[in-house]
Amino acid sequence: MCERKTDYAFEMACSNIRYGAGVTREIGMDLQNMGARNVCLMTDRTLSQLPPVGVVLDSLTKHGVKYKIYEDVRVEPTDKSFKAAIDFAKQGHFDVYVAVGGGSVIDTCKAANLYASHPEAEFLDFVNAPIGKGKPITATLKPLIAVPTTAGTGSETTGVAIFDFENLKAKTGIANRALKPTLGMVDPLHTLHMPSRVAANSGFDVLCHALESFTALPYNLRSPCPSNPINRPAYQGSNPISDVWARHALKIVAKYLKRAVRDAGDVEARSSMHLASVFAGIGFGNAGVHLCHGMSYPIAGNVKTHRAKGYNVEHPIVPHGLSVVLTSPAVFAFTANMCPERHLEAAQILGTDVSSIKKDDAGRVLADTLRSFLYDLEVEDGLSSVGYTKEDIPSLVKGTIPQERVTKLSPRAHTEEDLTALFAASMKLY
Amino acid sequence: MCERKTDYAFEMACSNIRYGAGVTREIGMDLQNMGARNVCLMTDRTLSQLPPVGVVLDSLTKHGVKYKIYEDVRVEPTDKSFKAAIDFAKQGHFDVYVAVGGGSVIDTCKAANLYASHPEAEFLDFVNAPIGKGKPITATLKPLIAVPTTAGTGSETTGVAIFDFENLKAKTGIANRALKPTLGMVDPLHTLHMPSRVAANSGFDVLCHALESFTALPYNLRSPCPSNPINRPAYQGSNPISDVWARHALKIVAKYLKRAVRDAGDVEARSSMHLASVFAGIGFGNAGVHLCHGMSYPIAGNVKTHRAKGYNVEHPIVPHGLSVVLTSPAVFAFTANMCPERHLEAAQILGTDVSSIKKDDAGRVLADTLRSFLYDLEVEDGLSSVGYTKEDIPSLVKGTIPQERVTKLSPRAHTEEDLTALFAASMKLY
Ligand SMILES: NC(=O)c1ccc[n+]([C@@H]2O[C@H](COP(=O)([O-])OP(=O)(O)OC[C@H]3O[C@@H](n4cnc5c(N)ncnc54)[C@H](O)[C@@H]3O)[C@@H](O)[C@H]2O)c1
Ligand SMILES: NC(=O)c1ccc[n+]([C@@H]2O[C@H](COP(=O)([O-])OP(=O)(O)OC[C@H]3O[C@@H](n4cnc5c(N)ncnc54)[C@H](O)[C@@H]3O)[C@@H](O)[C@H]2O)c1
Ligand SMILES: [Fe+2]
Ligand SMILES: [Fe+2]
Repeated sequence: MCERKTDYAFEMACSNIRYGAGVTREIGMDLQNMGARNVCLMTDRTLSQLPPVGVVLDSLTKHGVKYKIYEDVRVEPTDKSFKAAIDFAKQGHFDVYVAVGGGSVIDTCKAANLYASHPEAEFLDFVNAPIGKGKPITATLKPLIAVPTTAGTGSETTGVAIFDFENLKAKTGIANRALKPTLGMVDPLHTLHMPSRVAANSGFDVLCHALESFTALPYNLRSPCPSNPINRPAYQGSNPISDVWARHALKIVAKYLKRAVRDAGDVEARSSMHLASVFAGIGFGNAGVHLCHGMSYPIAGNVKTHRAKGYNVEHPIVPHGLSVVLTSPAVFAFTANMCPERHLEAAQILGTDVSSIKKDDAGRVLADTLRSFLYDLEVEDGLSSVGYTKEDIPSLVKGTIPQERVTKLSPRAHTEEDLTALFAASMKLY
Repeated sequence: MCERKTDYAFEMACSNIRYGAGVTREIGMDLQNMGARNVCLMTDRTLSQLPPVGVVLDSLTKHGVKYKIYEDVRVEPTDKSFKAAIDFAKQGHFDVYVAVGGGSVIDTCKAANLYASHPEAEFLDFVNAPIGKGKPITATLKPLIAVPTTAGTGSETTGVAIFDFENLKAKTGIANRALKPTLGMVDPLHTLHMPSRVAANSGFDVLCHALESFTALPYNLRSPCPSNPINRPAYQGSNPISDVWARHALKIVAKYLKRAVRDAGDVEARSSMHLASVFAGIGFGNAGVHLCHGMSYPIAGNVKTHRAKGYNVEHPIVPHGLSVVLTSPAVFAFTANMCPERHLEAAQILGTDVSSIKKDDAGRVLADTLRSFLYDLEVEDGLSSVGYTKEDIPSLVKGTIPQERVTKLSPRAHTEEDLTALFAASMKLY
């Protein structure tokens, strides 16, 4: 526990967001205003054929902005795919980056910008410790405009870039405020193109960002104290500002996610979810996430043969949002006793009448609420349905251990046995 | 009305905030981290004798940070007092600015930093048009850490600096994102020293920031369309992000303002109001304020002999929060028909049962709610009790006309006759 009173502080670091239907049509003018002469446009091979990229390219052409396009972003990026993008960036000597896509594209673009600005650095230098060296970023990065096309990661608001470290069979990332995009240009029209399962999975990411940041260890119980404010971690624990974002995002998820998944043409629902992904991103970008995310990294990394419906990719994947949400009933049943009021409030926002529920039952009630929410959205029945068996649990636990940067924000301390039990309880949901 | 779809966008510009009891005790370390060698510490003559400044000075000394102190900030600054601070800043060649005080201090420090960074500029160059020239800011300003000691203006989050232009007998200001402080260091312990009437008046400022930004013209009804996104105004109209901030601030005001005014030792109430001032600041800094603020500028500027209880100053003043709130019942009665749901929601948050109220009565109900809220807090009975009579109304109207930058965000268009009627209706409240 923290003795220095002065650690009882939290910071809201800034995120510049511009939101509006059709707002990307003017991106060429923004780039002109910035004096951009050589833009790197990053995207993936599905999006490069779709209007979100088309609209941006038209605007660049109209305003005479020169660019090169990189469309080889891997959906659910790996260290290898990051490195390919970094090489492209290094060779291009770009002065502005534009990322048009989901979290995969935005994260890849952040990494490309970072390492192109630090040409002497080795790949592990900036990767989170203990997997990487977690070195400070000293160079000034080029401006990056993030144009999110999923309603999910909130990567346009955060200083985080996640990749699958293939040797390790688990995801890890780079977390540093310097990675935060200069501007998130949030155009809800882009989300109308998302396949239903991408809308669902990226929506689960929003759900978990909100739930995890809302229930994260409070900022004033974090330890150890940094001896200097410059060392305050990016993930500071739940606090009155992140709570505002998390609660609000959760309300939108409760109201709109089902509609957004079921009807791609429901502009109100898809637009609202796009805004919710921004809100939840700002919330978790300041407060942090915890067990669902920490445990998702090996779930994604150990994937064997699972193919995700609606994802137009060659390789097996467990999409991020799905990998996160599958453990959520077990996780919140486990954490509830540490802050039952918040778990009950979350259940209530998600539509359960909690007026006569006892605090002791908060975990069970939120878990049941989540299970029925997922069932309604036709989510795969637990880890077993994405290819895992009991035999895989030790590897999944092993891949969770190094995720301490996030898991330490769990409101409840946990052992390897606890993690084992959480994975086991997540094999089947219904 | 706007035809280009692309104008239907809004931006949330960033504000870096650090919040925590005792957080200013480490400010010396922050300044060291920034490499500060020659800090300008601005404050006023009341605060320079009080712990908020003492704590900061101790920290600077402890960490060996060199500084010069300027304590001549005028409470409710004027062009003249701004210029004196600017001269001090120009002579000092400072590399970092620290403002410890209420809006008066923070605004003065913003102006000093701005003009010291633009030594060739004339004073009116950056002042809002049509009063000033509203020129773009081209130099990079020095970092400014704002330490707010009132729970009011939210100036630590905004790019605005307000002063009383004495020739004009009305306030005006400088509004530019470049003025936004690098960091707002919000230490709620500082608010424990506020005299009760300062707590009340600065709390009314929070109330009006929240109410005005919540009821401001929606961002997608603003006109004219800027032809380039770089010309999007700082005040963009109400939008889904500013709504989150405004609603939340209003809830805190409803719950805590009375307690904060009545008991200086109520740490929970005073801390909560401090956070509410940040929330409302971010909200109105993006959405804007409208009639209460626009009309307050001549109310403050035409002051004759009114002395404000609890304000330790030589000159007559109508404190900002008071000048804003006195017209609020009349203003919201006038604007309600344009968005009655929001006016009713505001009345409800402030404690009125609106379940059986008709939309047509929204204005009356919010006005009554405000009147009884102000009565409970022993607010002066209208403009007549701060020295104005009917004969002053033409001057008050005249001073409101050039405030179009804010008044155009009123949800209801208004004529000079409307303004006359609003001032007349604000002469007595109870
Ligand atoms: N940086 C962060 O803060 C953060 C937070 C959470 C997750 N992530 C990471 O983000 C990645 C997941 O990103 P995601 O969930 O946004 O999905 P994604 O970027 O992986 O995209 C998923 C699929 O949807 C397609 N797609 C995306 N937008 C589309 C659209 N508008 N229309 C049609 N198809 C579209 C893509 O081509 C892809 O096939 C993971 O690697 C995850 O770890 C990062
Ligand atoms: N920049 C913006 O965004 C913005 C917004 C609203 C208002 N304003 C401006 O801010 C000014 C008003 O600022 P304010 O309401 O914060 O008050 P203030 O700065 O004028 O201070 C009011 C009085 O309270 C005293 N005081 C302040 N903090 C104290 C503390 N902790 N303990 C004891 N005494 C304390 C001051 O010395 C002064 O006498 C006006 O000029 C107004 O126009 C600016
Ligand atoms: Fe996520
Ligand atoms: Fe104000």
